[in-house]
Amino acid sequence: MTDDKLLFTPGPLTTSNSVKSAMLRDAGSRDRDFLKVIASIREGLLEIGGAAPGGDYECVLMQGSGTFAIESVISSAIPPNGRLLALINGAYGRRIAEMAGIHGIETETLEAPENRRIQSEVVAERLAASKPFTHVAVVHCETTTGILNPIEAIGGVVKRAGAAYIVDAMSSFGAIEIDLRTVGADFLISSANKCIEGVPGFAFVLARRDSLLASKGMARTLSLDLYAQWAGLEKNGQFRFTPPTHALLAFHQALRELEEEGGVAGRAMRYRRNQERLAKGMADLGFEAYLAPDDQSCIITTYLYPKDADFKFEKFYEQLSEAGMIIYPGKLSQEACFRIGTIGRLRTADIERLLSAIAWAYQPARS
Amino acid sequence: MTDDKLLFTPGPLTTSNSVKSAMLRDAGSRDRDFLKVIASIREGLLEIGGAAPGGDYECVLMQGSGTFAIESVISSAIPPNGRLLALINGAYGRRIAEMAGIHGIETETLEAPENRRIQSEVVAERLAASKPFTHVAVVHCETTTGILNPIEAIGGVVKRAGAAYIVDAMSSFGAIEIDLRTVGADFLISSANKCIEGVPGFAFVLARRDSLLASKGMARTLSLDLYAQWAGLEKNGQFRFTPPTHALLAFHQALRELEEEGGVAGRAMRYRRNQERLAKGMADLGFEAYLAPDDQSCIITTYLYPKDADFKFEKFYEQLSEAGMIIYPGKLSQEACFRIGTIGRLRTADIERLLSAIAWAYQPARS
Repeated sequence: MTDDKLLFTPGPLTTSNSVKSAMLRDAGSRDRDFLKVIASIREGLLEIGGAAPGGDYECVLMQGSGTFAIESVISSAIPPNGRLLALINGAYGRRIAEMAGIHGIETETLEAPENRRIQSEVVAERLAASKPFTHVAVVHCETTTGILNPIEAIGGVVKRAGAAYIVDAMSSFGAIEIDLRTVGADFLISSANKCIEGVPGFAFVLARRDSLLASKGMARTLSLDLYAQWAGLEKNGQFRFTPPTHALLAFHQALRELEEEGGVAGRAMRYRRNQERLAKGMADLGFEAYLAPDDQSCIITTYLYPKDADFKFEKFYEQLSEAGMIIYPGKLSQEACFRIGTIGRLRTADIERLLSAIAWAYQPARS
Repeated sequence: MTDDKLLFTPGPLTTSNSVKSAMLRDAGSRDRDFLKVIASIREGLLEIGGAAPGGDYECVLMQGSGTFAIESVISSAIPPNGRLLALINGAYGRRIAEMAGIHGIETETLEAPENRRIQSEVVAERLAASKPFTHVAVVHCETTTGILNPIEAIGGVVKRAGAAYIVDAMSSFGAIEIDLRTVGADFLISSANKCIEGVPGFAFVLARRDSLLASKGMARTLSLDLYAQWAGLEKNGQFRFTPPTHALLAFHQALRELEEEGGVAGRAMRYRRNQERLAKGMADLGFEAYLAPDDQSCIITTYLYPKDADFKFEKFYEQLSEAGMIIYPGKLSQEACFRIGTIGRLRTADIERLLSAIAWAYQPARS
């Protein structure tokens, strides 16, 4: 287990050995001891969002990947006569619009270039100029690039327009402090295998209770019915359908380790150091970052392919992989790029190891 | 990890330490080494179903619980003008009808009592008497009771009627030999945490290729789109959305251990011995099985609450739990009962341990 490759990706991430070791147990999915784990996870997630258990917000855990949880919100919370405005500056914003379309939800999009934040003023203009929207959805950290959208400013605009606010905080929750009330989120979604540093298998939704209650009976599926999933958890503490018990045990341990690191503030500091070290090292090696530094999150960084005609990403990737490090391909709609994640159980020493390997794997004409 | 309670449940099950230890790794979800694991799992599952890779059948892996995979079939494979006949003798058959209803699929049901197998002759009569159905769905081992439905005989009837055949083999696949062609299944569904003895996190669909291809573009969701999930796996070997990497590593090991046990035949022998030991021991203790022995599978057995007025299931359950063994509550629509699973990494010595604990926990008036 120590010879695992390090994952410089947007997730699944490198996790601690203690998180993985928490999976060396078979828990009864309906057994009392395990239900305490579920309850503790739900409370812990609310606290990370600045919402005390028993307050305005509820936590719903959903099996599957983060996309499943996003779809559970989109397909459960937007009524048949609802209208969704999807804010888009990357692939994940586009995916939200796509799934809304599949569910027959009247959807409009507001698109910004992939290297630009979504401006709250532009959202305000659109909301003022259009037939009213019932829901607005935005991606916090658009993992396509690593850009951070200003979810608080946009939230203010959305609330003033009287719409419900859906925030995809998949790769930011746990890495960046988010206060649900300040953001004004009605539904905020993230996943077990992101910055809480658990393993994949489920995702979660933090929902304003009144918005959640309003979604009762509106779901377009059985499995992804957000309200029914919550009602099931409330009724007897159990998942409606088989939960990923091992992933939940791992997540429970991951929440403890987040707390030990000083919570989100402590973790954010480590991730920022990782990203700063990466940014400096890559600049020194001659790589060009896609985003302006001010728009760059500490989560994942996009680099353009070097102009060097000799650069072959496949070979570059394989060389790093052989050296024990996994980076991530790009996802820009137009430009050739690759991505390097700085989240997960990584420290600056790991970033330095990666930079050394990159220096060895990428030897442009100048050398 | 050795002090874990033994799970006498329908799953998640007790798994081997080596299966759980396979999760002590963080794999890159798009990394070449991990893609080999996915490919090997897909091939292994086809082989268990008697279908060679490259033959008539395809394997699709789907994140989430078994219900998610069932819903992926129901919501992807049945066209807007389709008509589904759901065969029901328990809660899981009812669930299929329920989810079809949610998707607006024209659905009729054929119900048998919970303690009776569904008779192929009755299915034939119904198919002959009705407006044609495009799809017929049945549960192989109805976990509500542990009854086994005759999927081959029903399959013959369904095929003669020209309908597509959906088989929920959730708790039977791996425990009972199933040949996809002999059964005539168009779609057969099972889950990672059942009789292959992996951990929960994903499920799978074995689909006739032509039936799968016919479902292209018909899905009513994004996440549960069966065709798109398959097309994604075929295109680059990857899941469309984050896979439960650790559960897949565990399952890969579980497939190896199934082979070491002599495949499904070897495993079935162990499960049958477990169930026979249980049946005899429980009869000796005065418990009444709900099903006739001929209808009883080796998977899970339903026992009626003793007539003894002093019997309190909660207390009984807690006493067994304190002794390190977890049994399962009942799910019959009418009668008070509990269930004992005999699948997972359990041996007759474990059954004997359970029987001793039951003898201690249940001391009726006679004692």
